[in-house]
Amino acid sequence: MNKEKVQIFDTTLRDGEQVPGCKLDTAQKLIIASRLDEMGVDIIEAGFPVSSPGDFLSVSEISKIVKYATVCGLTRAVKNDIEVAASALQYAKKPRIHTGIGTSESHIIHKLNTTREDIIYRAKSAVAYAKTFVEDVEFYAEDAGRTDNAFLAKVCEEVIKSGATVLNIPDTTGYCLPEEYGAKIKYLKENVKGIENVILSCHCHNDLGMATANSIAGAVNGARQIECTINGIGERAGNTALEEVVMIFKQHPYLNLYTSIDSKQLNEMSRLVSDSMGMIVQPNKAIVGANAFSHSSGIHQDGVIKNRATYEIIDPLDVGVNESSIVLTARSGRAALAYRAKKVGYELTKIQLDIAYSEFLKFADIKKEVLDDDIHQIVEACNCLEV
Amino acid sequence: MNKEKVQIFDTTLRDGEQVPGCKLDTAQKLIIASRLDEMGVDIIEAGFPVSSPGDFLSVSEISKIVKYATVCGLTRAVKNDIEVAASALQYAKKPRIHTGIGTSESHIIHKLNTTREDIIYRAKSAVAYAKTFVEDVEFYAEDAGRTDNAFLAKVCEEVIKSGATVLNIPDTTGYCLPEEYGAKIKYLKENVKGIENVILSCHCHNDLGMATANSIAGAVNGARQIECTINGIGERAGNTALEEVVMIFKQHPYLNLYTSIDSKQLNEMSRLVSDSMGMIVQPNKAIVGANAFSHSSGIHQDGVIKNRATYEIIDPLDVGVNESSIVLTARSGRAALAYRAKKVGYELTKIQLDIAYSEFLKFADIKKEVLDDDIHQIVEACNCLEV
Repeated sequence: MNKEKVQIFDTTLRDGEQVPGCKLDTAQKLIIASRLDEMGVDIIEAGFPVSSPGDFLSVSEISKIVKYATVCGLTRAVKNDIEVAASALQYAKKPRIHTGIGTSESHIIHKLNTTREDIIYRAKSAVAYAKTFVEDVEFYAEDAGRTDNAFLAKVCEEVIKSGATVLNIPDTTGYCLPEEYGAKIKYLKENVKGIENVILSCHCHNDLGMATANSIAGAVNGARQIECTINGIGERAGNTALEEVVMIFKQHPYLNLYTSIDSKQLNEMSRLVSDSMGMIVQPNKAIVGANAFSHSSGIHQDGVIKNRATYEIIDPLDVGVNESSIVLTARSGRAALAYRAKKVGYELTKIQLDIAYSEFLKFADIKKEVLDDDIHQIVEACNCLEV
Repeated sequence: MNKEKVQIFDTTLRDGEQVPGCKLDTAQKLIIASRLDEMGVDIIEAGFPVSSPGDFLSVSEISKIVKYATVCGLTRAVKNDIEVAASALQYAKKPRIHTGIGTSESHIIHKLNTTREDIIYRAKSAVAYAKTFVEDVEFYAEDAGRTDNAFLAKVCEEVIKSGATVLNIPDTTGYCLPEEYGAKIKYLKENVKGIENVILSCHCHNDLGMATANSIAGAVNGARQIECTINGIGERAGNTALEEVVMIFKQHPYLNLYTSIDSKQLNEMSRLVSDSMGMIVQPNKAIVGANAFSHSSGIHQDGVIKNRATYEIIDPLDVGVNESSIVLTARSGRAALAYRAKKVGYELTKIQLDIAYSEFLKFADIKKEVLDDDIHQIVEACNCLEV
């Protein structure tokens, strides 16, 4: 079976940047955009041009420098938004306008105070208007996660008629579970006339920790674009993490899906975004956390020293990390102590190791982490040095 | 349909603590254990007693103070480990020994260098021996995520015969996807003799960002215990996050599953663990991240101000957070500015708001976040004060 490609739509610079206190300036955005382009991202959502003069400038400048990727600008289903976005995107080699409107009852009634008919009218008009500026128009059905499937299918069918090329099905509030979100995508694949001519896109939020799982469920059920951010940053609990999506497809070849991302750049990309935004990545973040390839318990260390694959499914080199680390703590066993002692120059016999290990444990119960210097001290203190 | 309970097995103090540089001392562990007990955790895994004298002491002291929960100690399938654990647990009201061995080919061949028959023999012996000390014996089939289902079922059947009360099916390397992990639990429910007399437990790692999704898939397919940690901490990319599991069952009542956790204590519990370990929680962490209930984009702020449910599925009060915040940045709209201006004392007319908003945007394009003091400056600078 031929593998099918899932396009990676990176929204680090738009949805990702909607983080309190983490605004990027245009120079920073240009650096990140150019690195995303080199890493193999298919679409870069560069900003929401109408939202502020700074954002307009960023989208416009990014459009000029991106070489390979499509550059996308967000709009509401509002004429002026679309005109401003078109203007900001005018220098892009491959421009895309991303327009849309809320489709759930909550959005139609509480936020927009209107009717379903009016929503469809506004959606079609926005897509048609965007289409007068660019060929590639993506439509988002905001809060699709909580939108009744039959109405959602109706909206999709109508905007396809108006020229939409990509349909974004956002779980705006991070409410869905994978089975439910996957079933929604499946329903659209089966019930929307013309769906075979457009790409369905997953845009999932992480309020319940399900963003990546939902996006994967969407792709398995027929979506061919995933909207994500580096480190999973974004409003509230953030978006789907790009690095997780990329590595899941790599580690699960039986899904027959792939992305064009060069995974070796993931670690450096994660640091660039984290440093630029001042947005910390927790050490236990999947793929890009500082501890993602660290082993501290004795049982695990022993296994990894014998054979990496015992406890590691990803080769650290594959994501640009130089090696997995064996960190010595009170949970470490003899094998780890011997391994690290050897690295700093001591080849211990079994008896020497027993003596050194009991010294080590006393030490480690007090200290959080035992470092190379401490190993010298421990080994030499117990007189078990053999040169 | 009656709701069924999923037991929460917290391993913050055992698997969670296997984090380089984050060792807790006994006093810190006692505080955390007593708070977990009050929050409604069903089982507290207090440590791995044989691993170090400090860990033994912690398990022993925790056993003395826990009032409601079962207290559990980890062992390998090794006699001495089991004896030491039994001794550490002697003061527990409800003690549990957690013993087990690797069952995947990778573990049997590379780590243990033995045969399937020997694994079954060692597993049965360990469970039977643990049973001579305590009634409640949990068995873990290490690397069950990569263990062939038929062999896994055979191991499960044998340890049930030896007296195991709980069967832990760990995805040790964080390899599985939810469908696959759910199917594994379903297979065991359908193919293991005696399975109706024991509890199946999910223990998932987060290497691909799937820990919570896998655990939920396990519960949906019949598991009735989830092993998790506060903030999802743990070795490498960590474990299933307790707070995510609890809130998923709360937000999805149609699953007919519940836990006994008092969710109002989640936020404080998260901070206690993070502060004690010096283990940072990223701002975009689901449920307990600092930004989990912050809104910074204009579209979202406008929606939330009109009706909270537009963009928030969880009431912040439900997890012990006082209110959702409207943070002013360059992505904020007029509604948010008016809302915050009103909070600091300015009731702006439409024209005043227009003037103040354009001032605000210039300001916000430079500053990452606009604070209350800045609002005074902006409003007063544009002379649109009305008292």
